[in-house]
Amino acid sequence: MRMDELFSIDIKAPDEDIITQSKERWDAIAKPIDGLGRLEDIVSRIAAIQGKIYPDISKKALIIMCSDNGVTEEGVSQSPRSVTYDVAKLMGEGKSSVSSMISDYHIDVFVYDVGIDHDGTPFGVIDAKVRRSTENFIKKPAMTEDECLAAMEIGNDAVRRCHKEGFGIVATGEMGVGNTTTATALLCALKGLEPRDVTGRGSGLSDAGFEKKIRVIEEGLRIHRGKRAFEEITTKEEALQALCCLGGFDIAALVGVFIGGALCGLPVVIDGLITGVAALMAEKIVPGTGRCMIASHFGKEKGMEYVLNELALDPVIHGDLALGEGTGAVLLFPMLDMAASLYRNGTAFNETKIDRYKRYEE
Amino acid sequence: MRMDELFSIDIKAPDEDIITQSKERWDAIAKPIDGLGRLEDIVSRIAAIQGKIYPDISKKALIIMCSDNGVTEEGVSQSPRSVTYDVAKLMGEGKSSVSSMISDYHIDVFVYDVGIDHDGTPFGVIDAKVRRSTENFIKKPAMTEDECLAAMEIGNDAVRRCHKEGFGIVATGEMGVGNTTTATALLCALKGLEPRDVTGRGSGLSDAGFEKKIRVIEEGLRIHRGKRAFEEITTKEEALQALCCLGGFDIAALVGVFIGGALCGLPVVIDGLITGVAALMAEKIVPGTGRCMIASHFGKEKGMEYVLNELALDPVIHGDLALGEGTGAVLLFPMLDMAASLYRNGTAFNETKIDRYKRYEE
Repeated sequence: MRMDELFSIDIKAPDEDIITQSKERWDAIAKPIDGLGRLEDIVSRIAAIQGKIYPDISKKALIIMCSDNGVTEEGVSQSPRSVTYDVAKLMGEGKSSVSSMISDYHIDVFVYDVGIDHDGTPFGVIDAKVRRSTENFIKKPAMTEDECLAAMEIGNDAVRRCHKEGFGIVATGEMGVGNTTTATALLCALKGLEPRDVTGRGSGLSDAGFEKKIRVIEEGLRIHRGKRAFEEITTKEEALQALCCLGGFDIAALVGVFIGGALCGLPVVIDGLITGVAALMAEKIVPGTGRCMIASHFGKEKGMEYVLNELALDPVIHGDLALGEGTGAVLLFPMLDMAASLYRNGTAFNETKIDRYKRYEE
Repeated sequence: MRMDELFSIDIKAPDEDIITQSKERWDAIAKPIDGLGRLEDIVSRIAAIQGKIYPDISKKALIIMCSDNGVTEEGVSQSPRSVTYDVAKLMGEGKSSVSSMISDYHIDVFVYDVGIDHDGTPFGVIDAKVRRSTENFIKKPAMTEDECLAAMEIGNDAVRRCHKEGFGIVATGEMGVGNTTTATALLCALKGLEPRDVTGRGSGLSDAGFEKKIRVIEEGLRIHRGKRAFEEITTKEEALQALCCLGGFDIAALVGVFIGGALCGLPVVIDGLITGVAALMAEKIVPGTGRCMIASHFGKEKGMEYVLNELALDPVIHGDLALGEGTGAVLLFPMLDMAASLYRNGTAFNETKIDRYKRYEE
């Protein structure tokens, strides 16, 4: 995909008629009005994205993007870079945290190596390496525009393949040591935030490590955005530029997943901060993409609140999760199954002796 | 059970050693520290309640208590009283909202008629009717002390039977037109709250209906608590008295479920406001019971915040749910399955090349 093609993408808005008909179906079920609360809204949203009053989410996928980040040489994580490869290897073997979580719940997991800093790609992981690791963003741009577009294309292809294979919903996940640093830097750039206000401790940092992480993000913003380091980004071009300078291959690939999902009418579930920032970036680069996203959990990383507010999403799970790998996104799936089961199979008032509830505004 | 027996129950505290060992197990798994956030705490809590480092929650039950409330003759609900019977009938037939939600997820559901205002008990529902409906609490006490104890005994027996049959966790649910009124009245009594500050709209009320509901609760509190209508209850005896005067058979039976669960080491999951008030009442009557409870969702009813604060519980699901039947509690189950699966089967750091994370305090 070329940059001009990317910027001219037009996302079809989810069908408002289907939202209306879907809400009508919810209100026809013998239960209090809005009884399942925001889960009702999510099912209706999925219906509108898929363009079917009764959406099909029986086949579910999890797409995990793995890559390394040059900025880890600044010591912004307590883990050495090799952990990205090691965890991706566990994912390939079905032994990572998310694999263990879903051992009794069927989700097809597609793990991509989009830039792990290792000669090879672990068994069971799809080799889509753009290059071994991005550059250290306080020394030079993390990636070139071509590399960034290539990573986005991988994500776009991944989600479109899921659509072709009949998946009804896709969760996003990631693994990449240092990627709360790249994600936070991007969030600061997109929203014009001070790093100190949004930086979290990732997978755990000492006070000294935490201060260093903030300084590195500040430095990155100053180098790549100059005088406008702490000003909100307003154009697509600047957003893509920030992604190239401060992002990671994992985040760029996830941006591609969100855009691709919106293009083919496949709802894509956000996990935590990294996938969330990718979601926000996708919306900035291709406006309208956000309407095809589903939030899963609030997360522990501070920046998540900004991401969710900006996307006008309100997740149902508040668990202080901070694991990555798509763990929060997959936790949402069985809740959606239960909500969708009621939506599809629930007994309607007109099949009972019970009168429909009246809707009063509060 | 006699009142003096009830007041002398001593709940064994969950095993702190097991909590410690369980947290150690969580930290040994190859993932960021506290990565699954509060789901880790819930699994550890279940372990301590069951008294096993690796708790077994494979067999799950949902206990639903159904009954009618005399106070509905004041017009505090938009539904006629007959809806309690009609929905209980759907439950017995496996056609109610919660039944439709769990059609693809195995939970054994036990529905009890503890006071539906109907000659019979619907097919598939356990006949444990204390009496047809409570009294209208603005005219006389809702139930006698004997009736209240009888309802509690039903709940206690129900949960103990689950324990004997090998269930590892029990969700609570209820159905009873008017029971947000009785639950809110009890919450006001227990915490010394003004009804206007905590009353919600239940399954939907017009402004006029809402004002009437508040007045009825105020009236009930004044009649049964006199000058101390809006003072917090401090003794077990007063708490039980309030339950008799203002409660319902459903709530009393649920109090028995929570107490019974704590007695036999079976974690009991709170659903929304009604089960939450029963949980709080159980803790007031038998202190220590609260340590064996699990919160599921925040709910839409205003009073829930007070209930959860008082029990020091912080639910993972925030969905503005307002359905009842245990729907919120069962939504938690598959999340617990996934967390428990990681806890049990997760790859430990010492099975990998990855170094354990250091725990830094934030």
